Order: sequence, then structure tokens, then C-alpha cells
Amino acid sequence: MKYAIGIDIGGTNTKLGLVELSGKVLAHDRFNTPDYKTFESYVEMLSSRIKAMMDNSNGECMGIGIGAPNGNFYKGSIDNAPNLPFGKGEFMLVRELRNRFGLHHIYMTNDANAAALGEKIYGGAKGLEHFITITLGTGLGSGIVIDGKLLYGADGAAGELGHTCAVPNGRLCNCGCRGCLETYASATGIKRTYFELLAFYGGGSQIQNKGYDEIDALAIELAARAGDKIALETYQKTGEILGKNLANFVAFSRPQKIFLFGGPVKSGELLLEPTRKALDENLYPIWKGKIEVVPSQLPESDAAILGSSSLVWDAVEREV
Amino acid sequence: MKYAIGIDIGGTNTKLGLVELSGKVLAHDRFNTPDYKTFESYVEMLSSRIKAMMDNSNGECMGIGIGAPNGNFYKGSIDNAPNLPFGKGEFMLVRELRNRFGLHHIYMTNDANAAALGEKIYGGAKGLEHFITITLGTGLGSGIVIDGKLLYGADGAAGELGHTCAVPNGRLCNCGCRGCLETYASATGIKRTYFELLAFYGGGSQIQNKGYDEIDALAIELAARAGDKIALETYQKTGEILGKNLANFVAFSRPQKIFLFGGPVKSGELLLEPTRKALDENLYPIWKGKIEVVPSQLPESDAAILGSSSLVWDAVEREV
Repeated sequence: MKYAIGIDIGGTNTKLGLVELSGKVLAHDRFNTPDYKTFESYVEMLSSRIKAMMDNSNGECMGIGIGAPNGNFYKGSIDNAPNLPFGKGEFMLVRELRNRFGLHHIYMTNDANAAALGEKIYGGAKGLEHFITITLGTGLGSGIVIDGKLLYGADGAAGELGHTCAVPNGRLCNCGCRGCLETYASATGIKRTYFELLAFYGGGSQIQNKGYDEIDALAIELAARAGDKIALETYQKTGEILGKNLANFVAFSRPQKIFLFGGPVKSGELLLEPTRKALDENLYPIWKGKIEVVPSQLPESDAAILGSSSLVWDAVEREV
Repeated sequence: MKYAIGIDIGGTNTKLGLVELSGKVLAHDRFNTPDYKTFESYVEMLSSRIKAMMDNSNGECMGIGIGAPNGNFYKGSIDNAPNLPFGKGEFMLVRELRNRFGLHHIYMTNDANAAALGEKIYGGAKGLEHFITITLGTGLGSGIVIDGKLLYGADGAAGELGHTCAVPNGRLCNCGCRGCLETYASATGIKRTYFELLAFYGGGSQIQNKGYDEIDALAIELAARAGDKIALETYQKTGEILGKNLANFVAFSRPQKIFLFGGPVKSGELLLEPTRKALDENLYPIWKGKIEVVPSQLPESDAAILGSSSLVWDAVEREV
């Protein structure tokens, strides 16, 4: 039995999984990321968990794939990830693991790229050469596949579609610019749109007496399902702005499909229907009706581990 | 001596050139496109000119490259080009030429893709793996190079950056959408901005008594050089909107450089200075100061023929 190890590094948890090419996850492990304040101690812990996972399996490890915030594929480094405990700097995780495990296939990329590649290896993008995965979470991430390969660009950081300008002089973004798409189309963006509409209408929502920190995209989704007009309009507007900007991305790389991934996508047609409509309305005429927008087909519980491990299978396939 | 034949198909002229890998054009020819009302008669004329050019050379023809409006690389067809005399339909030009000349390397793409590849083979993009060429003419065309290859997307038509939305609910575009980048950043866009500013200020330009059809981007450039405030602001605003949108394109593919090509680029710093400033102001922070915007380095007189012929050298290089 051949397997890949997938690692998902998050600010709260580091998760590991032992994954077959079929997408079956044969073993899981996890530990608390913030317990390791230095990169050295983190690498020690991670390596011991990888070793234990290998020792407990009786197959052949084909490699290790890692998804990490600001994970750089070219350098194999985690660059200045704001929510990891070891802070600023470039941390050469791939080199460290190569030194310890001597495996040829050890790769790292960011979460959204891993999600896109996971879709290609295990999910709904099997056999597709041109597609885009949009991940909706705290921000908006993107993985762009062109001619069957992830687009990394000149420095490994291509595909920052959350930071394209959706609204000139619009909302303030963490990156310092204004109007970035992720300030509208993300779990956080949904919440901001809800509060903007609440202000515009001067109230009128069933959940308006909850505080800012109590309300999230899910609470707004539930209110929308209960017929809350402001919550409904929030999802409508989120889909409109997302769809309109997807039309710009199509003009760039002309994908066959667009996959949406993440919590807000679980709202289903609440988000998808206005997204598809706005995409089609804003598409360059030759593409109208030709670009499908679909939810990711990765199983949610293991999506991050699957995405990470797909880096290994993708590299193995290219060798053949 | 090895050479490629480059063909530039335009609504007015069809131009041919015999080009060495160095970029030296050893022979030229041309004929009037509108004289041939059917595709069949056009192919006859084009073929006879290609044959004459080959017969008069004593080298080895490596192939034929064609740049045409709506030229599709995958299909080798000209698809519904509005300004060519044979009108609607898919015209299989590459197949026709393959049947007649039996050469392996016969390719076609659109003008902007040809300009980008010409930049890579003969111009300022030698050795670059990631760059974007923006052509400013009646509209805005784009050729996107990723990992050293032109981006064609799922149907051969990727890279329609002129039809990304620059201004929500903005100017009416020929494509039927509103606010497309090419309605602002193009020779036509410059003229529209000039008239918009003239209306806003209620006059105040030295050339305001010329009619709409008498004024073009060059006239506005000359007025700007003579200190005309409205003309100066026109170029300033054009650069601002172009630069702001280039920042979105960087977020997509993270190019090493961006090349600008076409008439309005000859205005030099009038356009380049505000473009570079707006690009840098709107870039995602990790890229600030890292993306150069430069004029194309293809010699203007032969740029289209060079671009077309580069399709051949690019394919020959890939064979080695």
C-alpha cells in the first residue's frame, strides 16, 4: 500500500493524515500549534508525529505535503505567517523535513492552493486542466490551475484573488488597500455586509440585538433561512459581488469550472444562486452560459489534509 | 539560413514578413484585406504571396505564424472577426495553409498574444517566464505568459483583460457590459475620458472646438505636451485606472514585468508615470516596488510581423 502524509498547519491545530491515492484517510493525528513557541521546537514535535505515523503504517510513504498560511512552494518556507506562534521570518520547513526524512517528495503551499490541488486529485476537478478554487473563510483565498498545473507565478505567491479590487475606495482591508474582494466575499465580508445593511435600513433584522462578536456568517445564514430580510439581502449582495468578480477571473484564465470551498458555501443556493447569476451577467459574451460554479466535492472534515497530501500525488503523477 | 514567415492579418492590410531568429526582417509584402470578400479567395491570395516569398528566399522555412483578430490557437481558426470582410463563422486558416504548404509549424493566435510572444523571442522579455503584455489600441488586448508559455485557457481565448470590469456600472462597452477596462485604458478610452473631463469642467481645453471624429489620443497627447490642462488630466486619469487594474492582474499571475504596447504608449511618461504610481499604490503589500511597467521593446514598424513569426520560433525551441 502506497500513501502520502498530508499536514495542515493552522493557527490553532496542526493536523496530520495518512492518505491513499483514492482519498481514503487511514490515520489521523493532531497537536496544538501554539504550544510550540519557536520554529525549532515546532519542527521537533511535527517530525516526531510524522515518524510515529510512518512507524504505525506498513505501506510505502510516497512523500509529505504541507498546507500552511503563507506557505511558499518554490522556497518551501512559511513566510511571515501572522497567526503562527513563531512569528516573522522565513521558516524553511521543507528543508528541515528533507534533512530528517530523506524523502524526495516533500512540498508545501498555501491552504487555497492545497484545496485546489485536492479537488484535482480527489474531488470534482479530476481530469480538468483549467479551473479555479475560491476558498471562503476569514478571508478569500484562491488556487488557480492552468494547463493542469497550479499557478505559482514569479515568486510562488500568485493567486491572491482576495486582494483584487472589488469596490474602488471600498472597505478597508487588513492588507492596507481598500475595496479588496475578501472584505466582501468571505465569512467576515458577509458579516460586514450584514452590519452595513442594518445601518442602511436602520434595523429590521431578527438578530440585530446580538453584539458584533456574537454574529457570524452562520448566524446570518440561519436568520436568512428563517426569512430575515436583511440576512437574505446580505447573502444576495455577497453573491452578486462574488459573481461579478469571478467574471473578471474568467477573462484572465478562462477556466472550465470554478469551485467554491469553505463555511459560507454550506449556505447552498443562498450564496450560489446570486453568484451564478452575477457571473453570467458580467461575463464576456463568448463565455456566457459556459462557466459552472460548483461547491467543492472534498469531504469537509478531511479537506485540508487531503489538499496537502495531493501535492505528493501530483508530483508522483508528473514523474511517470 | 533558417527563417519563419510572420503574417499580420488586419482589417485594412495583410502584411507578411520573412524573419530570422535574431528578429531581422529580410523581406516584406502586403496586400489589401478588403479586396477579398470570401475566405476562399483570401486564402488563395495569401497562399500565393507566401509561396512567392518562399521562392525568393534561399533559406529553410521553419514555419508560418499568423496573428489575426479573434485568431484561435487551439483550433487554428479565425472566429467571427467583425472587421474582416468574410464576416461571421469559423475560418480554418491554419488547416488550409497546412494542406497547401505541408509545414509542421503553422500556428495562429490573436494580435495581443502574438505581441507578447514577440516580446519574449525578440524583445524585452527574453528569458522571462512570467510577464503580461498589454496592447493599447482601439481596445485593450492582453497576452499573458506563465511558466514561459502563453496562457490560452480552456478554449484558446483566455487573456481578455480589456473586458475585466474597471468601473462598476461605468462606460458602455461594445461587448454589452459596462465599465470594461478597455473603455478607459485604450486610444478610444483616452478620447472618452477627454470628452468626459471637457463636460465636467465645462470647457477649458485648447482643442475643444475640434469635432469628436477629429480628436484622437495623439491629438490629446500633443495638447498635453503643450500644457493643456484637460489633456494632461486625461492622461493622468488613464494611467491611474490602468495602473489600478494592473495591480489586480499581478494578484492573479504575479508577473516579473508588464509590457505596454501600442500608440498611446508613445506618449511616454505622460501615461507611464501615473500608471506606475497607481500600480504600486494598489499592489498587495508583498509586491510593492517589485513589478516593473515598461514599454514594449519591439521595433514598432515590424512589431506585428515579429509577433506572428515568434509563434514558429517558440514551437521550434520547445522541440529541442
